[in-house]
Amino acid sequence: MIALSLIGIGTGNPDHVTRQAVDEINAVDVILIPRKGPEKDGLAHLRREICARVLRGPGPALREFDLPRRDGSGDYRAGVDAWHDAIAEVWAAELAAALPRGGRAGFLVWGDPALYDSSLRIAERLRARMRLEVRVIPGITAIAALTAGHAIPLNTIAAPVTITTGRRLRAAGWPPGSDTLVVMLDGSNAFQHIDSEGISIWWSGYAGMAEELRIAGPLAEVASEIVAARALARARHGWIMDIYLLRRDCD
Amino acid sequence: MIALSLIGIGTGNPDHVTRQAVDEINAVDVILIPRKGPEKDGLAHLRREICARVLRGPGPALREFDLPRRDGSGDYRAGVDAWHDAIAEVWAAELAAALPRGGRAGFLVWGDPALYDSSLRIAERLRARMRLEVRVIPGITAIAALTAGHAIPLNTIAAPVTITTGRRLRAAGWPPGSDTLVVMLDGSNAFQHIDSEGISIWWSGYAGMAEELRIAGPLAEVASEIVAARALARARHGWIMDIYLLRRDCD
Repeated sequence: MIALSLIGIGTGNPDHVTRQAVDEINAVDVILIPRKGPEKDGLAHLRREICARVLRGPGPALREFDLPRRDGSGDYRAGVDAWHDAIAEVWAAELAAALPRGGRAGFLVWGDPALYDSSLRIAERLRARMRLEVRVIPGITAIAALTAGHAIPLNTIAAPVTITTGRRLRAAGWPPGSDTLVVMLDGSNAFQHIDSEGISIWWSGYAGMAEELRIAGPLAEVASEIVAARALARARHGWIMDIYLLRRDCD
Repeated sequence: MIALSLIGIGTGNPDHVTRQAVDEINAVDVILIPRKGPEKDGLAHLRREICARVLRGPGPALREFDLPRRDGSGDYRAGVDAWHDAIAEVWAAELAAALPRGGRAGFLVWGDPALYDSSLRIAERLRARMRLEVRVIPGITAIAALTAGHAIPLNTIAAPVTITTGRRLRAAGWPPGSDTLVVMLDGSNAFQHIDSEGISIWWSGYAGMAEELRIAGPLAEVASEIVAARALARARHGWIMDIYLLRRDCD
């Protein structure tokens, strides 16, 4: 029997880690740390740094492993499914090698494990093939890091908020029903493809991290500034994580 | 000059407090703790308990004060605006009394300060009348506590999620565009007023707290169980905070 803890660690500020996450990191037998693409230098490094800061005594073993990469060709959803299957294979092999007689494994998840993260879906696949108990430790989301950095509310009074992806904003436009949108997983500045009239944007790169960049203002006025800042930062760091809030001006 | 920190403390689990929140609580000169209605016994108690657990040395002064209550009659939005004005009056008086020569004040906010919370709007009102610098410390949201407790993802793959209120769900039905809804601030079981066909619900009362209650399943099968459990818990504790996720069954 393996107990797998998916531990939300926030978005890169080691001080965003909760006491519960610290305790869980220290309680497991092994921490699995994935490496993928440019994360090798960026996010995997931050995961190691967070472990170094919170581990007490000898602590769990740290076990790094390479993740398969997603096949970006073909249908998006089918590509993601196949990728999750491939990751589940790797996790199963790593867990079997690290805990041959069972035990507790921890997996550090960027932000919160529930939000646009694949680890719960991969754990679900693992449950089909081994005795596995899954526990989730919530983390500070990129959304909370975004709104905290800009010191803005997520919602207007009693109004709904829709969280969506750059891909979907680009393909389907502004979704109906909400005057506030949070856009995640946007690799291509999807905000450029909507009508900017009456829209404000609050954009953060590396939200929560020491490198945090923030740009906010009327979308028509700041869109090109964001595109340029994003390209520059990406070139400098080799990778970028960004997130933004769009709001239709009301009142 | 007063520096006001709005400090997200999560939803009642003292272990959900981040290191950043702990440091901020210890760095301020005074912590303002509001009391309102049934919170007198419930949430204010939890705020005091969190302070007691994280304060080092003598720490900041704790200053409790009574909040005005919202006038529930008349137009909802106007009622909320007037209520926020009244709360801003009280905050201004408390800050002036606690920090006559300026300094740092902290205000512990349930969950995350950006999400269906009035403190950023009240701070905005204060900025119009005094020199005030506002800082936001993100917290674990009730949404993250809900999804962690049930060990479920918030979104389906690459799909949007809408966060809304019970009031709005009841008035306007299922909003267009998202197959996943998170419903907050629902005082009257709004899930009973939508077509339950093909909908699953994950409901938590006191998400994140020791008293956490969880019920999940097809909405048609568990709705009445949730209504009964909610009424019972509310009667027992004198208050309840609950939140739920509704998902249209896909695939």
